[in-house]
Amino acid sequence: LKALHAAERADLSSKVAGKKYYEFRRRGFHSRCINEGIFSDDANFVLDCLDSLLTNGISSFPPPDVTKALYSAAISFCASVDLVKKGDQKTPGTFFEYLCAPILQTFLGVAPSRSLEVLNLDLKTRLPTDFIFDLGARKPKFHVPVKTSTRERIIQVFAHQRVLDGVYGSGRFLAMPMVMAETKTDAKTNEVTEICLPDQWRLYHLHIARFWKVVYFDLPAGYEKLSGEFPPIPVLDVGSFFAEDGPLRELISLHYG
Amino acid sequence: LKALHAAERADLSSKVAGKKYYEFRRRGFHSRCINEGIFSDDANFVLDCLDSLLTNGISSFPPPDVTKALYSAAISFCASVDLVKKGDQKTPGTFFEYLCAPILQTFLGVAPSRSLEVLNLDLKTRLPTDFIFDLGARKPKFHVPVKTSTRERIIQVFAHQRVLDGVYGSGRFLAMPMVMAETKTDAKTNEVTEICLPDQWRLYHLHIARFWKVVYFDLPAGYEKLSGEFPPIPVLDVGSFFAEDGPLRELISLHYG
Repeated sequence: LKALHAAERADLSSKVAGKKYYEFRRRGFHSRCINEGIFSDDANFVLDCLDSLLTNGISSFPPPDVTKALYSAAISFCASVDLVKKGDQKTPGTFFEYLCAPILQTFLGVAPSRSLEVLNLDLKTRLPTDFIFDLGARKPKFHVPVKTSTRERIIQVFAHQRVLDGVYGSGRFLAMPMVMAETKTDAKTNEVTEICLPDQWRLYHLHIARFWKVVYFDLPAGYEKLSGEFPPIPVLDVGSFFAEDGPLRELISLHYG
Repeated sequence: LKALHAAERADLSSKVAGKKYYEFRRRGFHSRCINEGIFSDDANFVLDCLDSLLTNGISSFPPPDVTKALYSAAISFCASVDLVKKGDQKTPGTFFEYLCAPILQTFLGVAPSRSLEVLNLDLKTRLPTDFIFDLGARKPKFHVPVKTSTRERIIQVFAHQRVLDGVYGSGRFLAMPMVMAETKTDAKTNEVTEICLPDQWRLYHLHIARFWKVVYFDLPAGYEKLSGEFPPIPVLDVGSFFAEDGPLRELISLHYG
């Protein structure tokens, strides 16, 4: 956030209904776009909210504030990297993992692992995975891919879940991708759009594997509607997800506490 | 090939048993590595062999020569792009598609399409695909992803095939990825290695979808062995694949001619 204070703010032309976007500019560099409605540059607010999440595993802040704090923490770092290095996707991606993993670890009470042993007759190997949170015998195991955006690469996430279903049995691992946003800024027109492929998600969900929840920091309109159509793909914003009456807390405290 | 004549040739340190690699260098640019054993800079030989493939749908050249001609045609273009633009993967990838598609079209007698209509109860959409060659009712349909290399992105190919199996029924589409190579040059040590993930391929083949054949221009040792282990994943070089007694000709002429 400090690094961004020195940068210029420039409005972008949003093609996303109900959302306003701008970008930061400095010395010829342009940051990724920022969703004005869920961005706060108040570091104290962001830190207090993160602190509350990381201390108690539950926030005393209402869900929209949690979304705002987490989105601001994530996007401010990514935007500040954009202002010093062009085309660096690795640093923001790694930071986003470092942001998501400890919050989940606090909620779930276990540290994540990044690969699973496969013992399958004569085939013995380790399967590299995104984060796996294993609550133990007869409790849920969570498969958590963490991505700054997915676009057509979402098929990898479905396919990984398919392998987990196949190796360990369907339903053992709950797939729970955490994604920052699906926005794209056109460098020539300064227009912001959301790249959503809801029909392909439907096909993948029907034919490859099922997601338990998909959690977005900046929830795209094109995916939000998938929750309300049959068969539903439950897509929601990160504040609702971590809320006291949200799906994660409900699953853990009510059923496997 | 002409563009490469002006470039310097520099030997690389091959970590791949039985293969020698070098690269082209010009004005600070380095090309991708070239497998000496299957590269020819004799343009007449390359053109004659391609001509023979594209005219008759069958080559009068022996399989190792077909591999050599096709590998040389593919890698020479890619290497010449490497010498004028850093990090351009799109141009070589597109060229490689333009090289593979017409040869298959000559063999199979049909033009490829790049998407399929999905009519599935209330879901009506088009599924974007790699090349699809449809021989017609009660004949094989080929699903042909064309990639200059795959690495961990191979899971996308398995997942796409899974969707085709799910939507149209297993066995309707024969998956036949065509890949140039899996080599990687370390820029600091000048060492060439092949990035192969055979154990992951096994898991994907067991749990996501099955490939009919995997065709390599520069066949990696780490995948070649998958053909001889149970259950086999049939990986072979492009010359053997297109040969008169090769699997494609056999399937087409014997069974669906």
